[in-house]
Amino acid sequence: MSHTAEIIAVGTEILLGNIANTDAQMLSQSLSTLGVNVFWHTVVGDNPQRLREALDIARHRADIILTTGGLGPTYDDLTKQTICAAFGQKLVLHEDILEDIRAFYQSALHVPMPENNTQQAELPEGCTVFDNPVGTAPGCAFEADGVHVLMLPGPPHECETMLRRCVEPYLRALSKEVIVSHDIMTFGMGESSVDQLLHDRMVRMVNPTLATYAKPCEVRLRATAKAAGAEEAEAMLAPVVAEVRAALGDYVYGVDVKGLEAVCFQLLKERNLTLSTAESCTGGRVAERITALPGVSSVYRGGVVSYWTSVKAAVLGVPQETLDQYGAVSEETARAMAEGARQITGADIAVSVTGVAGPDRDERDNPVGLVYIGLATPEGTFCRRTDSGRRRRDRIQELAANHALDVVRRYLTGLPIG
Amino acid sequence: MSHTAEIIAVGTEILLGNIANTDAQMLSQSLSTLGVNVFWHTVVGDNPQRLREALDIARHRADIILTTGGLGPTYDDLTKQTICAAFGQKLVLHEDILEDIRAFYQSALHVPMPENNTQQAELPEGCTVFDNPVGTAPGCAFEADGVHVLMLPGPPHECETMLRRCVEPYLRALSKEVIVSHDIMTFGMGESSVDQLLHDRMVRMVNPTLATYAKPCEVRLRATAKAAGAEEAEAMLAPVVAEVRAALGDYVYGVDVKGLEAVCFQLLKERNLTLSTAESCTGGRVAERITALPGVSSVYRGGVVSYWTSVKAAVLGVPQETLDQYGAVSEETARAMAEGARQITGADIAVSVTGVAGPDRDERDNPVGLVYIGLATPEGTFCRRTDSGRRRRDRIQELAANHALDVVRRYLTGLPIG
Repeated sequence: MSHTAEIIAVGTEILLGNIANTDAQMLSQSLSTLGVNVFWHTVVGDNPQRLREALDIARHRADIILTTGGLGPTYDDLTKQTICAAFGQKLVLHEDILEDIRAFYQSALHVPMPENNTQQAELPEGCTVFDNPVGTAPGCAFEADGVHVLMLPGPPHECETMLRRCVEPYLRALSKEVIVSHDIMTFGMGESSVDQLLHDRMVRMVNPTLATYAKPCEVRLRATAKAAGAEEAEAMLAPVVAEVRAALGDYVYGVDVKGLEAVCFQLLKERNLTLSTAESCTGGRVAERITALPGVSSVYRGGVVSYWTSVKAAVLGVPQETLDQYGAVSEETARAMAEGARQITGADIAVSVTGVAGPDRDERDNPVGLVYIGLATPEGTFCRRTDSGRRRRDRIQELAANHALDVVRRYLTGLPIG
Repeated sequence: MSHTAEIIAVGTEILLGNIANTDAQMLSQSLSTLGVNVFWHTVVGDNPQRLREALDIARHRADIILTTGGLGPTYDDLTKQTICAAFGQKLVLHEDILEDIRAFYQSALHVPMPENNTQQAELPEGCTVFDNPVGTAPGCAFEADGVHVLMLPGPPHECETMLRRCVEPYLRALSKEVIVSHDIMTFGMGESSVDQLLHDRMVRMVNPTLATYAKPCEVRLRATAKAAGAEEAEAMLAPVVAEVRAALGDYVYGVDVKGLEAVCFQLLKERNLTLSTAESCTGGRVAERITALPGVSSVYRGGVVSYWTSVKAAVLGVPQETLDQYGAVSEETARAMAEGARQITGADIAVSVTGVAGPDRDERDNPVGLVYIGLATPEGTFCRRTDSGRRRRDRIQELAANHALDVVRRYLTGLPIG
C-alpha cells in the first residue's frame, strides 16, 4: 500500500522569508525515493494554535505527518507539546536522553547544560526516539489513530542527519517494496543537451524511472527501480545505467559519488599521487572542496590563492615577463601558475585556475566568465580554456572550480583534457 | 487593519523535492516588509482537486491569497480554472493580452505563438492584470467575498519581476502600515546564552519584537517594528538595537551586514590596509569567503593553503625547529604561519588558521576541534586558541574560519583579540 505524506514546517523565520524551506525539499526527495507520495507542504509560525489547526487538517488527509522545527530549548519551540495535545500523547522526561544532552554539553561544549534544555529530553511516552548526534534536540515518531507522526529538528544538518540515520529506516519498514536508485553524475553537458539525448527514453519509462536533476553547474541523472527485493531492483537498474553511460560517454564522472573532488581523491589514492592547487579567480574554492573530504591529507599537499598578480610572481614564481606580456588571465599564466605550485609544494601534479569572475571585465578587457585551467604533470603541462558566458560571480567561481577538478579527473583517467 | 496572507504554491516539482519553494521565501520577505502577516505557506501538486481544497481552507483563514505556478500553457497548468471555479469568477479571453503574447513570441522568441498559449490570455473578468515582461503568462488579482486573490507565475525570475512591478504596489495600496526590521549579527556566543540574557525582554515585547535565529556558528537577532511610517518604526527600533548592543557588547559585529567577511572588507577599505591568509585546517574557507565579495581585490592579496607541514615550511617559511618542537597545531606555528604569509605576500596584516578538523586526533594527540588563529600585524603578532569541542568536520572548519575573520575584525576595531 502506498503512503500519503504531509510535511509541516514550524518556523516563523520561514514565513518571514529569512530562510527557504529546504528541509521540505530534502525530505520530499527522500520520501519520493522511498515510494511515499508527498501531497502537501505546509508552513506555520511558532504559534501553537495555528500548528494545532494544521495538524487537524493534515491528520485527515495524510497517513504520515513529518514536522520540522520547534524542538529547541527556546520559549517559542512548541511543536512537541502541541502535537502531543492533538494526538492525546503524554510527554514524559526521558532520563537517558537528558543524560545524553548533559554529556554533549560537557564533552562537546565544555559548559554545564542550561536548565532550559531539560525540555528537549521530554518526548511522547512509548515513542521511537530518533537520536541527534549533531545537536541537542532528539526527534521521535509515534503512531496514533492510523497516522504516523515524525518530528525532526529544523536546522538542516540536524534534519538531514536524522533523516538518513533514523527516518529512512523507519519509513522503509512501513512498506513492503524496496526502492533503489543510482545517481549518475555528469559534468560538461548542459541539462537541455542531456534531456534531448535521453528525452524519448525517459518519458517511456515507468519502472525503472530516469530523471535529470540540474545543479547549477552539473547534471545528475537518477535511475530508480521499485521491486520486491534489492537484488531484483539492482538487476532492473543495471541496463539503465549502462545505457546512460553509453549515451553520455566520458561526461559521466561517476555513479553514486559525492562530487568531482571525491572522484579525484579516489583516483589520486589509487595512483599514489599527490596534488596541489594554484587559484586566482576561484579564491580557494578548489582547495576548500578538496579539504572538505576526511583523510584527504594523504594526497593533497596544499596550494596558493594568488589573488594579486604580485602574489602570482612572488609566491608561485610566475615570470614577470609572462604576466606583462600575456596578462594574469591567459593560457601562459595558467601554465606557469600550475608549474609554480607543483614546484614549491613538491606535489606530483598541480592544477591552476585564472579567470575573470566579474562583476567587471579585467584591465585587459577579458570578458567576465573567461577562465583558464592549467595542469602541471610529470608528462608536461596542459591547459583548458573555457568561457561559460555566465555573468553571476558565484556561478562563474563554482563552474571554474568544477572545470579544474574535471581536468584533474580526466588526466588521472587518461582522457583528453579537452 | 493588518492583513493576513497565505501563499499557495502549485507545483509537483516542489513536492518531489526537485526545487525548493524559493518563490514563497521571496514573497514572504516582501510581504513582511509591507506589513502583511504571512501565516501559512501551502504547496500542492498540479492537481485541481487538492488545489481546490487548499483554496477552501485558505479563504477562511486569510484575507490575501497569493498563488505561484500553474499559469503556463501545458496541460497540468490548472491554477486559473480552479481558482475561478472556487470564487465564482468567469474566465474570459483578453484580446489585448493575446496580442501581447503573440508579439512576445515574434519579437523575443522569433517563432509564431503555439495555439495552446491562447489560454494564457484568459483571465477572470474585471481582474487587475499583472503584465509579465519576462515571460508569456500574465498574472492577475481580484477581490471576491472579502478575499484578495493574486496569481503569479512560478519561474522565480518571472515571479520576482511581477512582485516588484505589480504585486507590491497592489498590496501597498491595501495597507496603512509599514514594517521595518534590523538584523543584529553576533559571533562568539551560543544561542542558549544569548537567549538566557535576553529571554525576559523578548517574551515581553509585542511591537517592536525581537527574535533570535541561529546559524551553525553565529546568532542573529532580528528586531522588527510596525508603524504608520518608516521614521516612526526606526524610532521604535533604535532603543532595541541599543539595548541588544549593550547586553551583548562586542559579540555584536554589525547590524544589517552580510557576514564577518563583509565587515572585514569594509574595515580594511576604511583603514586602507591589505590582508592575506595562511590556512591549514580550514583549507581555503577563509579565502573563499573573502573572495566571494565583488571588488575585494582592493584589500585581499591572496594566501596559502598549507595543508602539509612541508608546505608550511617551504612556502610560508615556518622554521623547521618550530614544527619539530611544537607541532603543526600550536600557537608557535600559527604565529609563524601568519608572519610568513604577511611577508611573502607583502600584505599589511595576515591571519592564519591551524587546527584539527578531524575525524581523528592529530599525530601529537591534539583533540578534534582544537584550533589556533594567528594574526601578524605591524604592531606584532597575536594568537587566539579555541576549542569548540565539536566533532563534525565541516562545522569545525566553518567555525574556525569565523574565528579567523573575527580576529581580523577585532584587530581592525581595536578590540582585544581574546
